[in-house]
Amino acid sequence: MEVLEAVYRISGTERVRDRAAAILLEQTIETPRSVAERYAFVRDHMMGSVGRVDLDPSNGALATLSLPVVTASIDPAQFLNVLFGNSSLHADVRLEDFTPPPSITTMLRGPRFGIPGLRERTRVFDRPLTCSALKPVGASLEDMAGICRDMAEGGLDLIKDDHYLADHPFAPFDERVRVCQDVVEEVAARTGHHAVYIPNLSGTPDDVKRQAFVAQRSGVGAVMAAPMLLGMPVFHQLCVSELEVPVVAHPSFAGVQAIRPATLYGKLFRLFGADAVIFANYGGRFSFSAATCEEIARTLRTPWLDLLPAFPTPAGGMDAGRAAELVHFFGTDSILLVGGSLLEAGDDLREKSARFTESVRDAALAAKRPR
Amino acid sequence: MEVLEAVYRISGTERVRDRAAAILLEQTIETPRSVAERYAFVRDHMMGSVGRVDLDPSNGALATLSLPVVTASIDPAQFLNVLFGNSSLHADVRLEDFTPPPSITTMLRGPRFGIPGLRERTRVFDRPLTCSALKPVGASLEDMAGICRDMAEGGLDLIKDDHYLADHPFAPFDERVRVCQDVVEEVAARTGHHAVYIPNLSGTPDDVKRQAFVAQRSGVGAVMAAPMLLGMPVFHQLCVSELEVPVVAHPSFAGVQAIRPATLYGKLFRLFGADAVIFANYGGRFSFSAATCEEIARTLRTPWLDLLPAFPTPAGGMDAGRAAELVHFFGTDSILLVGGSLLEAGDDLREKSARFTESVRDAALAAKRPR
Repeated sequence: MEVLEAVYRISGTERVRDRAAAILLEQTIETPRSVAERYAFVRDHMMGSVGRVDLDPSNGALATLSLPVVTASIDPAQFLNVLFGNSSLHADVRLEDFTPPPSITTMLRGPRFGIPGLRERTRVFDRPLTCSALKPVGASLEDMAGICRDMAEGGLDLIKDDHYLADHPFAPFDERVRVCQDVVEEVAARTGHHAVYIPNLSGTPDDVKRQAFVAQRSGVGAVMAAPMLLGMPVFHQLCVSELEVPVVAHPSFAGVQAIRPATLYGKLFRLFGADAVIFANYGGRFSFSAATCEEIARTLRTPWLDLLPAFPTPAGGMDAGRAAELVHFFGTDSILLVGGSLLEAGDDLREKSARFTESVRDAALAAKRPR
Repeated sequence: MEVLEAVYRISGTERVRDRAAAILLEQTIETPRSVAERYAFVRDHMMGSVGRVDLDPSNGALATLSLPVVTASIDPAQFLNVLFGNSSLHADVRLEDFTPPPSITTMLRGPRFGIPGLRERTRVFDRPLTCSALKPVGASLEDMAGICRDMAEGGLDLIKDDHYLADHPFAPFDERVRVCQDVVEEVAARTGHHAVYIPNLSGTPDDVKRQAFVAQRSGVGAVMAAPMLLGMPVFHQLCVSELEVPVVAHPSFAGVQAIRPATLYGKLFRLFGADAVIFANYGGRFSFSAATCEEIARTLRTPWLDLLPAFPTPAGGMDAGRAAELVHFFGTDSILLVGGSLLEAGDDLREKSARFTESVRDAALAAKRPR
């Protein structure tokens, strides 16, 4: 019988096997066992089981549970529900990891383009991709177009909307997308460098569906969306029903501190369909350690369930001057997303973009040379 | 100028005004100030401001920020984004509270029925409403119908699906809804007691939309959905575009521990449209304190923004024997949701439901008598 295997970290070290059994009950039938035993189908298919429960020298205990796929595989929301629905409310439980069986992988599918598909679109195969953001929110369409032009001429591979850009009256989605897409196409025709413009989708499912349609009709090469803001089932429906271009996942509102970061960003976002996943980099203004970032990046790229690998996209208070360090740390299959640090250049935006592009190229080359 | 006021708790007590300024930047333009100052509209409308920043004797500091409504009021996802998007990723920041201005209240609307509308449907005005859940998942439709009949005959006001009931092949949504709605209607015709059956909606936005249609066509008196599982913008779209019946919010996957519980359950869920909000009660198997539960309940019912009050619905490992205590603690305008503790009664389910109903009635009466 197929099972969904999940690993939870339990705080405390006493009676952890009992605690694991209680978590199993919470995530399966949420009913006293005596009640469930009355129904043959429930008893045979719904109870799951407790596997290994080991004390962890660093903190508490790790419990591996087998959860019933017959219920987790019904829909994307139900999958999250069975994986970490009620237990997310327990202060002493944290979701560490999970392994979905084929029926769930078939339902959720993962990246449709992933690293290979995004590389095809940028035609860059031998170094990290460079990325920056159109901001600040509130700048006019003319200003946005100017920033976009400087970045494209400076050779950036990906130019994404800031995640605060929505369908504002001062820079409406449809016009913004048309203007920015025109800019990258014009620069490509003139210089031969094809930057990919990536608009941000925001709103209710109906809003987002309409924006996805408009963006694709305008010819964009990819889109961005925040799975935890929109809802992960919406994100999934976007991927499988609305999008024919890659999607970049933004971490906004993802402060679900009870999920191990590598599991949330590295596995869940990838499984739900993200082709590239933005996360808060170490050494910026967020609190992930280098080890956590390395684990997120590794998890996104590692062979898993026959899913395509997805691009790790470290971001958040990063300085273009760190290009060499980050190329070394994250390796070739990564997207280096630098925002404010480029925009500070003002009139020198094109030059600073070009220097950033150059330093990534150089660092990637240097990494290949024998030392 | 309208502002969205938000209060954040900052860990630590040093340089907290600088930290508050950094959070403001994160939640507004996420761009160095020097860049933003170049654009007049950004400078005048997007920067927000830092208000009071006070050390809190219990823990860290509380910072009140004014956030730009011109961007937060665009759509429900963007509202969350501006309220707590990136800052949710900061380990030292927690969202404590917020006060939306009229433009955001107008967009989100809050409960369409709330306490008065749900009372009308149950015709119970003078005591807490009683509620239980159809479970365990995996039981057949015949079993579900039997449980539903016992509970309805036992006089429960609300009979909701367990949150693990999705559109399973062994108990498909459409049939389950028809069967259970038929049961409550049959019992009402026979006994005069109108229990409200509340099916659970689950899946992608398209799934949920279809289920809402089917459920309402079957004549159900309310529905349940989990805002954090489905995505809060989906929940909102359901409320304003798909539903003509009240909606009960389930807390599954809401372990966003960086939001104060009363703010998440009491304000956000209500603002997004929940008529009743289920939360983990004190003294059960979850970790909220009695004080937290009291605050959630008070927040849901307190006059706020001209929104209807919503029913606090404590649940989670509650025993029917606690009825009197809970009536006393939560007062008349509450829904007392008891699941497994009733189902353990097995063949005595109807009697135990009736005793629970009776004890809530008695406790509510006793509370009114002069002591």
